[in-house]
Amino acid sequence: MTKPSDSEQSGQTQTQGEGKLGIIDKKISRRDLLRMAGVGGAGLLLGATGMGGLFSAQERSSAKPASQTAKVDSDQMVSFYGTHQAGITTPPQDFIVFASFDLTAGSLDEVRKLFQAWTTAAATMASGEMLGSNNDNLNLPPSDTGEAAGLSPSRTTITFGVGASFFDGRYGLAGKRPAALADLPPFGGDELREEWSGGDIGVQVNANDLQIAFHAIRNLARIARGKAVLRWTQEGFQRTSGADPAGATPRNLMGFKDGTNNPDVNDDAEMKKVVWAAASDGTPWMDQGSYMVVRRIRVRIEVWDRSSLGDQENTFGRHRSSGAPLGSANETDKLDLEKKDQKGEPVIPMNAHIRLAHGDGSVKILRRSFSYSSGMDNKTGQLDAGLLFICFNRDSRKQFIPMQTKLGQSDLLNEYIVHTGSATFACFPGVREGGYIGETLF
Amino acid sequence: MTKPSDSEQSGQTQTQGEGKLGIIDKKISRRDLLRMAGVGGAGLLLGATGMGGLFSAQERSSAKPASQTAKVDSDQMVSFYGTHQAGITTPPQDFIVFASFDLTAGSLDEVRKLFQAWTTAAATMASGEMLGSNNDNLNLPPSDTGEAAGLSPSRTTITFGVGASFFDGRYGLAGKRPAALADLPPFGGDELREEWSGGDIGVQVNANDLQIAFHAIRNLARIARGKAVLRWTQEGFQRTSGADPAGATPRNLMGFKDGTNNPDVNDDAEMKKVVWAAASDGTPWMDQGSYMVVRRIRVRIEVWDRSSLGDQENTFGRHRSSGAPLGSANETDKLDLEKKDQKGEPVIPMNAHIRLAHGDGSVKILRRSFSYSSGMDNKTGQLDAGLLFICFNRDSRKQFIPMQTKLGQSDLLNEYIVHTGSATFACFPGVREGGYIGETLF
Repeated sequence: MTKPSDSEQSGQTQTQGEGKLGIIDKKISRRDLLRMAGVGGAGLLLGATGMGGLFSAQERSSAKPASQTAKVDSDQMVSFYGTHQAGITTPPQDFIVFASFDLTAGSLDEVRKLFQAWTTAAATMASGEMLGSNNDNLNLPPSDTGEAAGLSPSRTTITFGVGASFFDGRYGLAGKRPAALADLPPFGGDELREEWSGGDIGVQVNANDLQIAFHAIRNLARIARGKAVLRWTQEGFQRTSGADPAGATPRNLMGFKDGTNNPDVNDDAEMKKVVWAAASDGTPWMDQGSYMVVRRIRVRIEVWDRSSLGDQENTFGRHRSSGAPLGSANETDKLDLEKKDQKGEPVIPMNAHIRLAHGDGSVKILRRSFSYSSGMDNKTGQLDAGLLFICFNRDSRKQFIPMQTKLGQSDLLNEYIVHTGSATFACFPGVREGGYIGETLF
Repeated sequence: MTKPSDSEQSGQTQTQGEGKLGIIDKKISRRDLLRMAGVGGAGLLLGATGMGGLFSAQERSSAKPASQTAKVDSDQMVSFYGTHQAGITTPPQDFIVFASFDLTAGSLDEVRKLFQAWTTAAATMASGEMLGSNNDNLNLPPSDTGEAAGLSPSRTTITFGVGASFFDGRYGLAGKRPAALADLPPFGGDELREEWSGGDIGVQVNANDLQIAFHAIRNLARIARGKAVLRWTQEGFQRTSGADPAGATPRNLMGFKDGTNNPDVNDDAEMKKVVWAAASDGTPWMDQGSYMVVRRIRVRIEVWDRSSLGDQENTFGRHRSSGAPLGSANETDKLDLEKKDQKGEPVIPMNAHIRLAHGDGSVKILRRSFSYSSGMDNKTGQLDAGLLFICFNRDSRKQFIPMQTKLGQSDLLNEYIVHTGSATFACFPGVREGGYIGETLF
């Protein structure tokens, strides 16, 4: 008989023990679970005696169906493996659950094991499969918590990065911190709170299903037990793709289209310039990785909602309904910052958000933001809602920091927003099947 | 020239001023907005001068397109009007935003006006239309906050009810409180917190899009300014219908199928018995209404995740993978509570959740619950996630209260859950087009 072990151990061991990534994990797909009523049925008398803990996996294995691979539509699945991590230039999914972790691991070896286990788990979840092999053994905590069973992969991506505190010396990596993972200076509009800031590790999970995204963070936290603990999490959303079959640019909670001027993720040259770190930048282990900035930006919803449409449009520098820059007719019209009205005043105000964010056009970032709604602020009775701003750039010192410095100083938007959380992470390069996230560093 | 007024006034006035429900509101649909780039374009020079506040709606009206009605797939839209309110026997959508309000209105007349304005707004939003007619006037705060512009109705339903405190005498309605809107007694497992409990008014918004549901609560709160304030809100979700095209019974965050034994909403006789209040029950104004119970139930995620599959299955009395009752092979197999194992022990434990909830089968409720995830509990570092339990019943004294009393006493599930919030509401009957929610009472 196998001996029951506690969940953190079993989760850890089995994930690592499988070695060949995804081979055993894929034995039972989440979809296949739907067809497996028989497994549960066969096992029920064991469970019903209240003595389930005494029976081993072997005793139930006869009820297990033959190995099956989930059939999933390819447009439902984003491969976890590749030159780059998924979830960066991947077109944004409908939901995000972001989690920041702090390490409690005692050694770099344990950190490495954590990332190895996470890699296996992330690839498995991106494929829409159940985690681990202990999902029908009554003795043990199930390897997978089960709430995503039977669901399609829903374009799940899981993106890992490490923060500045990761390089504080605990793991002998102080000399490895990338200069591009710079500390952010204080910005105008910052009212940062510890509870939504920082972290040794950042994990961005995106999916077209919020329950699947929650499932991923929950299971990654579970696998991390004894090695890392959650520091903060934030859920986010945008309009679901189902509600907008035409695929228009999504609107933020201020009612404006958000992301119109984002660089084109299909333009490889642009992505090299804007997003992907290169070995020649000075940190070889970050070659083909990217730097992520996360900002929890609360919108003063009630104040915004009392401002006139004219003020709102001048604040962004765009028309609300069409998304066109002020002075233009269509959303994608080229930004003309020189245009003057009949009185000689700039059509797009000097401190409008798009003017400041655009600058001279030479500095770009790849934004990948989501709306958030976290109930009510009990102190004020107002909605705690806004933007979970996320961006990727090749070097925060040259891109995000100068851009946000300028915005923090004079963006008209500052009247309506407050930055309540902040974190930055160096997101590793992608891995090939058989490798693990972080292997270039550890 | 029109004079700008502050948003609460304009929001209020225009909604009421339109009188004929939905006639003017529907002039510009959210979908049509996508085709209206020209409107923004034509108006931009006004806005760009920074003097938008001086221009009236009339000056921009020439750019307005002819009245159009949104074309929406009928399976995307749930009618707001009917004998009963929508959102009760309506098959559950993918998302919920629940909000509890406290009244600040000075008179019953103001309360009536609030519900009239809310009725217009709710019907408009259920149709996927923009709220109000001031959405292109630069002088005024837009009638609609805009974040749902261009999106399909996404099966939006908005359900209104009033709590016990509504009948406290402020509005001369103390004698009208239904006996069936009984105060809930303390239950085992209660650790209720004020911040997620009670309220004069409860509003349940459901939609297949979280941004649309958020938009609805936000705009209802905005319309209520000066008459009611938010008391608490809670977002929730289940797996999206898109992630489960087969339409299996959804799983809760404990990984188990939830709702298998719910009464059949298509069985009119059953719904009359279980859900719909009747005039003969003693409260004529609630005829064809229903009583809603809302419980915020936190799951001790980390504890649950360390328990064995056998314990988990015994707790619910069902198999996790198939959803079948212990002792049965299929999810929908009839519950056999008498079945014994070879040792003569009941196959479904005496304190299993389904046994206690089922009782003798004579008392039922209609459950309509969602999962929730509200980040982390900063005190414990654990996930604040669980179930936003919602049920409807004809008389809470005879249905929910005895059922929950029994569960609170001995449900095995109590080891893993804690009730942190609680509220009950008398949900009005539905209204015909031209009427308003609450008209049978006010």
